[in-house]
Amino acid sequence: MSTKAYAVASAEALFGPLAIERRALGPEDVEIDILYCGVCHSDLHTARSEWPGTRYPCVPGHEIVGRVTAVGAKVTKFSVGDLAAVGCMVDSCRRCLSCDDGLEQYCEHGFTATYNGPIYGSGENTFGGYSEKIVVDAHFVLAIHHSETQLAGVAPLLCAGITTWSPLKHWGVGPGKSVGIVGIGGLGHMGVKLAHALGAHVVAFTTSPSKRDAALALGADEVVVSTDPAAMAARAGSLDFILDTVAVAHDLDAYVNLLKRDGALVLVGVPATPHPSPSAGGLIFKRRQVAGSLIGGVKETQEMLDFCAERGIVADIETIAMQQIETAYARMLKNDVKYRFVIDMATLKAA
Amino acid sequence: MSTKAYAVASAEALFGPLAIERRALGPEDVEIDILYCGVCHSDLHTARSEWPGTRYPCVPGHEIVGRVTAVGAKVTKFSVGDLAAVGCMVDSCRRCLSCDDGLEQYCEHGFTATYNGPIYGSGENTFGGYSEKIVVDAHFVLAIHHSETQLAGVAPLLCAGITTWSPLKHWGVGPGKSVGIVGIGGLGHMGVKLAHALGAHVVAFTTSPSKRDAALALGADEVVVSTDPAAMAARAGSLDFILDTVAVAHDLDAYVNLLKRDGALVLVGVPATPHPSPSAGGLIFKRRQVAGSLIGGVKETQEMLDFCAERGIVADIETIAMQQIETAYARMLKNDVKYRFVIDMATLKAA
Repeated sequence: MSTKAYAVASAEALFGPLAIERRALGPEDVEIDILYCGVCHSDLHTARSEWPGTRYPCVPGHEIVGRVTAVGAKVTKFSVGDLAAVGCMVDSCRRCLSCDDGLEQYCEHGFTATYNGPIYGSGENTFGGYSEKIVVDAHFVLAIHHSETQLAGVAPLLCAGITTWSPLKHWGVGPGKSVGIVGIGGLGHMGVKLAHALGAHVVAFTTSPSKRDAALALGADEVVVSTDPAAMAARAGSLDFILDTVAVAHDLDAYVNLLKRDGALVLVGVPATPHPSPSAGGLIFKRRQVAGSLIGGVKETQEMLDFCAERGIVADIETIAMQQIETAYARMLKNDVKYRFVIDMATLKAA
Repeated sequence: MSTKAYAVASAEALFGPLAIERRALGPEDVEIDILYCGVCHSDLHTARSEWPGTRYPCVPGHEIVGRVTAVGAKVTKFSVGDLAAVGCMVDSCRRCLSCDDGLEQYCEHGFTATYNGPIYGSGENTFGGYSEKIVVDAHFVLAIHHSETQLAGVAPLLCAGITTWSPLKHWGVGPGKSVGIVGIGGLGHMGVKLAHALGAHVVAFTTSPSKRDAALALGADEVVVSTDPAAMAARAGSLDFILDTVAVAHDLDAYVNLLKRDGALVLVGVPATPHPSPSAGGLIFKRRQVAGSLIGGVKETQEMLDFCAERGIVADIETIAMQQIETAYARMLKNDVKYRFVIDMATLKAA
């Protein structure tokens, strides 16, 4: 099946239309007409070969929402006409310990990414959500219970949402916990919303005093400007958990020192150059940990989507046309987005 | 009460005899005639001002075993003639969350160290186990159920033992777990013994191929020479937990990469210069953690001592006279000890 997509042919190329092939519907597959696709920083890093291993042509996009247009003979979870979503993964080995635990993102054989594959087994490339349609194994398709009017804002939940939800849940964030969220961007703004909705006391950390009111509006109970030493010192030893969404090298000890005994600082972004080394003493003297977390499994992604549907939670977004993707990337590089671009895929179909 | 001790008067001075004062027995106090005192690297660092804040005269020693010679009116846990021990702490605030949790080592107000104080409240110095007698609040005195002939080997359990036991227990080491112990010295040899006794599969890591047989004899199931890249690569992703006892800067990623998903690399030593920064990707892609752990609380120290008494576990030691302490320090700096020096305090009393 030929499908319209937007692709780059090389690291230096600009995005443009490309007809790609989607596989014929298998018995376990779901075919989705893509309505919206969020724009993640990973899209930009991959398209421009800022991370190793980009395969071209590259069709990014792993925050996909749409409508089911066909289902394979063995698919019972979805029917034609359903709203459905696809996140960062479209397959995994499904027989390792992590897959058995519903944590396909940690598949011992490597999950198949929604774009830039390689497909487990064949090694072929995969094409993501900057396209009209996608065919995905039903196991990796999520159900959406938000209303149709919320749909564009649901798209970023598939990466920004689950990337923050998974560690918040894994480390037990909830009522009675004091939680820091570092960085108020695409991921961080979801971290604030979700931690607040989970009942925690939320402290947002930002280098931009101008983001104070916005962070409070997102659900933060307090906002700390991280460049203010007195404000940071006043929070020493006060937080149970800190989610650090900042993917550029920075001083981790500034946040480790804010943790209580047994507190965790959890990184979700890989910086281009390493963070300065955290102090061993800062970890030892309060049994603290620095850890990492990667997106989330299928089961917890569905739990997050259901939680958000029930609470009316979506991402704060700006909708763009497919043809505006280069401008959107340029603005992302200047942090000029509140807080996520989402492509209205009708603009690709109409082109 | 005047007590014979061995002290240094400054960072550059040599050890020599000094009469110190022990406080009069209070109603909650236990007076202990010291029989043996282990020699910890902390003793050397403190005596020679290699860490900030040494108060002189300095009487080190926090691996203390001896016999009770007097008890205060309110003490019920000990009687005159009992064997008893004192570790790294002699007091704490006893009203913070950590103290309430039996984790006095993480006291929010700072515990009172057995030597080099300062005493909580008064700010006075404390004098450790390189001495004839010590008077300690009964809460911080441990019961010993080993036999008298084992007593010298019990002394290092009070620091080397509990420093390794506490993280092994906190991170759930036991049957079915694969556990790495990095560094086969004073701490590491106890880590191997304890992890083995707890039922784990133990992999000992050392830079010295010559330590292979000794590590196997201590209870390791495997020994890996950490400078052998092929041997390290063969263990990638295989360990649930790694206890890193090496207190000089080294590549943490070499060990992070050996952890399974959700595995923890736990540091117990503060290096003089920072470790190279662990890779964020190494943490993120398997939800691993780098953490720290500090000695152990009173309750868990007693549990460790009871466990060791039941299993007949003691440290492997070399007994020295008090007058040999400078030679012992010199040999420790060359790693020429298997695996802990213990001072026979009869040699001080006879002097």
